[in-house]
Amino acid sequence: MAMQRTPLLMSNILDRGAKVAPEEEIVTATEQGVRRQTYRETRNRAHQLAHALQAAGIGMGDRVGTFMWNGARHLEAYHACAGMGAVLHTLNIRLGAKDLEYIINHAEDKLIIIDADLLPLLEALQAVIPSVRQVVVAAEQGFAGWSTNLPGAIDYEAFIKGQPPHYDWPQMDECAPLGLCYTSGTTGHPKGVEYEHRSQYLHTLTQCMTDSMALSAADVILGIVPMFHAMGWGVPWSALMLGCKQVMPHRFMNPARLLDLMVSEGVTLSAGVPTIWQGVKGLVETNPGAYDLSCLSRVTCGGSAPPPSLIRWYWETLGVEMVQGWGMTETSPLAALSRRVMKRSQLKLSDEERFANLAKAGQIMPGLDLDIFDEDFNRLPHDGESVGEILVRGPWICSEYYRNPQPERFHDGWLITGDVGKIDPEEYLIISDRSKDLVKSGGEWISSVDLENHIVAMDGVAQACVVAQPHPKWDERPVALIVVAPGMSVNAQQVLEHCATAFARWQLPDDIIPVEGIPLTSTGKMDKKAVRANLAEQGYQLPDLRIKAG
Amino acid sequence: MAMQRTPLLMSNILDRGAKVAPEEEIVTATEQGVRRQTYRETRNRAHQLAHALQAAGIGMGDRVGTFMWNGARHLEAYHACAGMGAVLHTLNIRLGAKDLEYIINHAEDKLIIIDADLLPLLEALQAVIPSVRQVVVAAEQGFAGWSTNLPGAIDYEAFIKGQPPHYDWPQMDECAPLGLCYTSGTTGHPKGVEYEHRSQYLHTLTQCMTDSMALSAADVILGIVPMFHAMGWGVPWSALMLGCKQVMPHRFMNPARLLDLMVSEGVTLSAGVPTIWQGVKGLVETNPGAYDLSCLSRVTCGGSAPPPSLIRWYWETLGVEMVQGWGMTETSPLAALSRRVMKRSQLKLSDEERFANLAKAGQIMPGLDLDIFDEDFNRLPHDGESVGEILVRGPWICSEYYRNPQPERFHDGWLITGDVGKIDPEEYLIISDRSKDLVKSGGEWISSVDLENHIVAMDGVAQACVVAQPHPKWDERPVALIVVAPGMSVNAQQVLEHCATAFARWQLPDDIIPVEGIPLTSTGKMDKKAVRANLAEQGYQLPDLRIKAG
Repeated sequence: MAMQRTPLLMSNILDRGAKVAPEEEIVTATEQGVRRQTYRETRNRAHQLAHALQAAGIGMGDRVGTFMWNGARHLEAYHACAGMGAVLHTLNIRLGAKDLEYIINHAEDKLIIIDADLLPLLEALQAVIPSVRQVVVAAEQGFAGWSTNLPGAIDYEAFIKGQPPHYDWPQMDECAPLGLCYTSGTTGHPKGVEYEHRSQYLHTLTQCMTDSMALSAADVILGIVPMFHAMGWGVPWSALMLGCKQVMPHRFMNPARLLDLMVSEGVTLSAGVPTIWQGVKGLVETNPGAYDLSCLSRVTCGGSAPPPSLIRWYWETLGVEMVQGWGMTETSPLAALSRRVMKRSQLKLSDEERFANLAKAGQIMPGLDLDIFDEDFNRLPHDGESVGEILVRGPWICSEYYRNPQPERFHDGWLITGDVGKIDPEEYLIISDRSKDLVKSGGEWISSVDLENHIVAMDGVAQACVVAQPHPKWDERPVALIVVAPGMSVNAQQVLEHCATAFARWQLPDDIIPVEGIPLTSTGKMDKKAVRANLAEQGYQLPDLRIKAG
Repeated sequence: MAMQRTPLLMSNILDRGAKVAPEEEIVTATEQGVRRQTYRETRNRAHQLAHALQAAGIGMGDRVGTFMWNGARHLEAYHACAGMGAVLHTLNIRLGAKDLEYIINHAEDKLIIIDADLLPLLEALQAVIPSVRQVVVAAEQGFAGWSTNLPGAIDYEAFIKGQPPHYDWPQMDECAPLGLCYTSGTTGHPKGVEYEHRSQYLHTLTQCMTDSMALSAADVILGIVPMFHAMGWGVPWSALMLGCKQVMPHRFMNPARLLDLMVSEGVTLSAGVPTIWQGVKGLVETNPGAYDLSCLSRVTCGGSAPPPSLIRWYWETLGVEMVQGWGMTETSPLAALSRRVMKRSQLKLSDEERFANLAKAGQIMPGLDLDIFDEDFNRLPHDGESVGEILVRGPWICSEYYRNPQPERFHDGWLITGDVGKIDPEEYLIISDRSKDLVKSGGEWISSVDLENHIVAMDGVAQACVVAQPHPKWDERPVALIVVAPGMSVNAQQVLEHCATAFARWQLPDDIIPVEGIPLTSTGKMDKKAVRANLAEQGYQLPDLRIKAG
């Protein structure tokens, strides 16, 4: 033994922020404004929470559910569970009752910490979640008078009151479980991904690298991505380690509140999905000059790929770098990332060339391995043209699902991501589509993502969603749903002419369908499954299959 | 098993630079100029070298010595040994013959890769290093006609020629040894620190964090610190992972060549010891306007603490941030670090306050634990006043010495660093001294480092070295050796008056001794052991002990 055998436990980095920056703030949005607490207070409260959880019978490895918005108490739950060796199970508050019931029972959550405003959603399940012995209710401004029939309900403040502000974090195996997050499955039951101390520790260090998200203790971070999505993309852990100011929007997710928070708290970095950044853009555009975003330097965008036009707008209008991240719940989640400058040779690129790079999913994070494969798992060339199934492996990549291994989702130590794409000679990953969203027409594949990005770049188009529709001759044909921006008008012919400038004739959508909005999944992505179901329910037919009116 | 059990092997990150930035350059200084090779070439040559080493009988765990300057072939040796599982033993070319003989025999080096200009140093040991079966000679410009009587000598290029440019890096335990580096002991034999894959992997990620050395693929790095000092402070590993341009000075270590390299290669970041930065400063001062250092943004300074006046000069004159790092061979080496802005609250500090912070050894790196202890190993308060022995622990801290455990250097899982210091309420480590260099006078401790920093800030003083001298009444008293800058004059009275502005009367040196130069250790630090020995040899007496001339 030459070097110390220090296990990679989150408890070795969790308390660091409070140590080096005890006076730095955690800011949580409330009905009337914000509430603030320091890192020192947050640390002490997290240690108190750990004592309270232990007193409530939570031991190492037990699942503690959270049913919460992004807020200081949710962060305390992250901190406490990781420190004491409990497993933080972040429940997605946007799931339907059936999925929630399944998940809570599958994880056997013993205790759930819940934001008071969300109580009704859980109360509906009271009779069917027998493992839950106690709920701890976090009451923000306006919810002090909560009441519930959920078992053992106690106010969060009463729960931790009087507990000692120091918990001696236990030693454990570095591969001990840390968190549990279920993916919103498109088929079958949701599947659980169990995060471990070691995997999340390595993810945290990597996320803080200059060539990654470059998180720093000098940053003010607004994590908009919910903390129930893949550990809030790891941002809460990085922030706890670094001690950077955190701003948490809680349930106030409308663009106006988010913009107000960015301005008033001096946010330098924010993380969210493309729909959030579309909404923020819309509000800035309709209120020119109203928001001073001079502190904001970068936004990280993930969950689904941001349209290149959006990346360009943030840079040209606000001077803000949109950092595209690619990953999924199964990849902890950061697997690849694209920045304006990823290497020295890019310093001499034009803005146009940088936008082209930023539109790609990016380069693989150090320590991971990623490649594209054909159907027989032969590796494909990195020529920017060959399209294949994307597989990834490494120390923060899932190896099986929780109590439901799903071996068909893995191959020879690799995770089969379900995304298809290509890799260019510069080793950039370019996502073509989710494999299930590709349109297969006449034996050729059409990328719905490419069409959407192209259409949404048109003036007057706010959103675009391309899905396959069955066709007896071609197998499938694409149709595009579009949401026209307020006060604008765009017709089908214009969209098709715009597409024809970039796509072959056989790749053009067979139909352009104006809609009021696109349904979103519980993780904020366009819900193409729902779009296809809606079309089927309406008896939608492709234009050339319709019975001609006589 | 929820996450993949990918071992933390350097081979998982080593080839990454060549993958993402294959055309980026490794530049090595030569007699007449520089030679250049790309990352792709370097990677392929490293893989060839691994094959050649294997063919020469080197297996996993075998020690391969390098006796080399910083250059591309030394980097290839790092790359090849780490990939194939051999142990890279970086021999310090500045050691004396006795120490070298001891180290080579203690490590049982099987093969040594040596720069041709260094052959004479090793030839002197030919008869006494029986484990060495072969030497591989790297010949830079001007040394093509080398010859030697060392066993099995072969030219580096002939050695790797014809070997395949891809080696399938083997899997192994992540705690397998990676490197071996001996500390220049002040007593007894040199002691070996064995680096492991896991420890160096974690060190590499941490070094690339924004809040650490912030290495980036966009940087141009001039590593002046020898690659035989604590793995060149980890810079070669980080560079291989990121793919940033590297500039290597080889044997041309004079300030003029270093400055030429910085200017002509557009160096953005350089790493070296204070004496290097003193030399560079001297040359810039005597040639105002001659060097365009506009690309240079930061220099990292370690090995010993830079005087605050030096930190200030680099910032005020060149706009260059001097990043102070603290560590030692036993800590891989980066353990603590000080930057101009370590957290958001420091954004509002004045330059004066930042200089004060930069003069401290800095904040502990994430994942390490560090504290100060009294003689009975009780923790001391972090009040900026209590001085104690500094102990450190964590995943890249040595737990024993190679084949020479030295348990007295460890306590309850901690490394006893041999430095003494304090920790302030901001969690900054402040080094008072090496414990063996403290001056004990009348039961009180006087920091030689504090006196030196104060004296060297005087106009006209180029270097200062404070050592203890024995005194029958006070036990020890400090004396200061000073090197006066060329063309300047400084007398003892001026030095004492200057010291009296900051130190108590009993802390002032008893004598100010003008000298031509201060001897340096093989790692470029002031050699206080040699200074004390010289004084003893000269029969030096403290002024109040001298027999008065009658």
